[in-house]
Amino acid sequence: MTSTNSHEDTSAASSPEPHTTCELVDRRYGTEFAGPLAEGTETIDLQLRHRSVRKFLPAEVTDAQLELIIAAAQSGSQSSNLQVWSVVAVRDQARKERISKALGGHPYIENCSVFLVWTADFNRNSRIVEAKHGTDVDSVGYLENTLVSFVDSGIAGQNALLAAESLGLGGVFVGSVRNNPLEVATELKLPEYVFPVVGLAIGVPDPTERASTKPRLPQRAVLHHEEYDAEAWESASAEYEEHLAEYYADYGRENYSWAFTLNRRIGSVEGMHGRHRIREWLAAQGFDSE
Amino acid sequence: MTSTNSHEDTSAASSPEPHTTCELVDRRYGTEFAGPLAEGTETIDLQLRHRSVRKFLPAEVTDAQLELIIAAAQSGSQSSNLQVWSVVAVRDQARKERISKALGGHPYIENCSVFLVWTADFNRNSRIVEAKHGTDVDSVGYLENTLVSFVDSGIAGQNALLAAESLGLGGVFVGSVRNNPLEVATELKLPEYVFPVVGLAIGVPDPTERASTKPRLPQRAVLHHEEYDAEAWESASAEYEEHLAEYYADYGRENYSWAFTLNRRIGSVEGMHGRHRIREWLAAQGFDSE
Repeated sequence: MTSTNSHEDTSAASSPEPHTTCELVDRRYGTEFAGPLAEGTETIDLQLRHRSVRKFLPAEVTDAQLELIIAAAQSGSQSSNLQVWSVVAVRDQARKERISKALGGHPYIENCSVFLVWTADFNRNSRIVEAKHGTDVDSVGYLENTLVSFVDSGIAGQNALLAAESLGLGGVFVGSVRNNPLEVATELKLPEYVFPVVGLAIGVPDPTERASTKPRLPQRAVLHHEEYDAEAWESASAEYEEHLAEYYADYGRENYSWAFTLNRRIGSVEGMHGRHRIREWLAAQGFDSE
Repeated sequence: MTSTNSHEDTSAASSPEPHTTCELVDRRYGTEFAGPLAEGTETIDLQLRHRSVRKFLPAEVTDAQLELIIAAAQSGSQSSNLQVWSVVAVRDQARKERISKALGGHPYIENCSVFLVWTADFNRNSRIVEAKHGTDVDSVGYLENTLVSFVDSGIAGQNALLAAESLGLGGVFVGSVRNNPLEVATELKLPEYVFPVVGLAIGVPDPTERASTKPRLPQRAVLHHEEYDAEAWESASAEYEEHLAEYYADYGRENYSWAFTLNRRIGSVEGMHGRHRIREWLAAQGFDSE
């Protein structure tokens, strides 16, 4: 049961905070969830509460916290135990500002305590294979190896962010490291076979940030049973636009829609912020992605 | 403090189960962790305890559990709220067996309760853009959009697996859906702009499975500060081979090493199990990956 549809109070920030797993699921979808739900867990409740944090207090993520966060990240599954990612932790203020500028200007990179740059890393592995077996490494240039390092970086990065959230920290993934990956690579001295995948800005959340939970597509749009249902998107996305309109209305944004967001991003090459060139940038770092 | 180096008992299964966060971190690295560590959380302990489960009891993951797991997955960060993944849940025994056979034969696909196939999905989004804005979708064919859907599938999949683990379930990621993605696409009736990224077999763990925690690279090999340290891998990987040798010795495997694993997988195209053709397979589903 939710109060999402009652608008006596137009401030999302003053909506009652959900407590039970069911209430958290309702908030996640911006409507009452239709199905039966299993009893939740502390971890699932934490996952359901996730919101991207972009405003931080001037407080440090300690080394002891960071090392625990990275241990959690390394505990995630890794394809064939290849361990094809590394992460560069940037705390230096001047470096954070240079990276932010190179990516178009993002205050959350400048103001976070630590900016983690997740990288696809076949440098280590290829040097080990060359040293131990004396063979040329044949396969790094194939797209599969680019892809496996992007999947495994996502797995590791999500473990890191959730671990941080469980410690009372917050953060936001920063895909715009791919707006200008070669300048990031130069700044971080990334060698051949190392490429920036995604950033993760972490810090102590500023409680004055007005950030609520953006609703997601109804589950029937993304969960298919036995076979992909090619018509599921249509009614689900129409319903979703209603929930999203309520969410945006709370922020005084009357003309936003999901279709608008999608069109801006995938309806034209201009919306890609330069990332249509990523194949050539990957190749420059040794990921030929054939 | 660990007892990893004491081998009075050669059975890993009978080693004392770690309880504290520090003990769990030690086990994760196969040695005593050098640095100071922040106090852990229930979620971090769960992450540190992760192991891939490949043997399942003949018990069901309920719909109520599955819906909660997918709600957790959808709660993960999604690039620009594009929501570029869908998941197909396969429970039908004959279908699980056909998929297993197409991928080379994997008992954990056949015996799990539900086999989740995470897919990159630009089908929904491109149809919405076309319907609402009447424009051709220019950008789906760029590699960036392949990559963003792989990262976001990793984020979502990890949230799903951890949610399942918090419910007492277990599972294993199945990258081999990429051994034969077009046959998987045919089996699941995936339309244009939908491509299998990774599978996730979930079920009730069989407690007789002897599966312990495979150690990971020392943290100094993967966590760099301010700039990438191109020499960090060398001493770290030598140390890692020692920890891994102890792990494998417990399983009676005397001739395994990480260098061997790496060489088998990235030292030749043969080790890719056909995935060197993934670019052409992606293109067949509409992901030109230019």
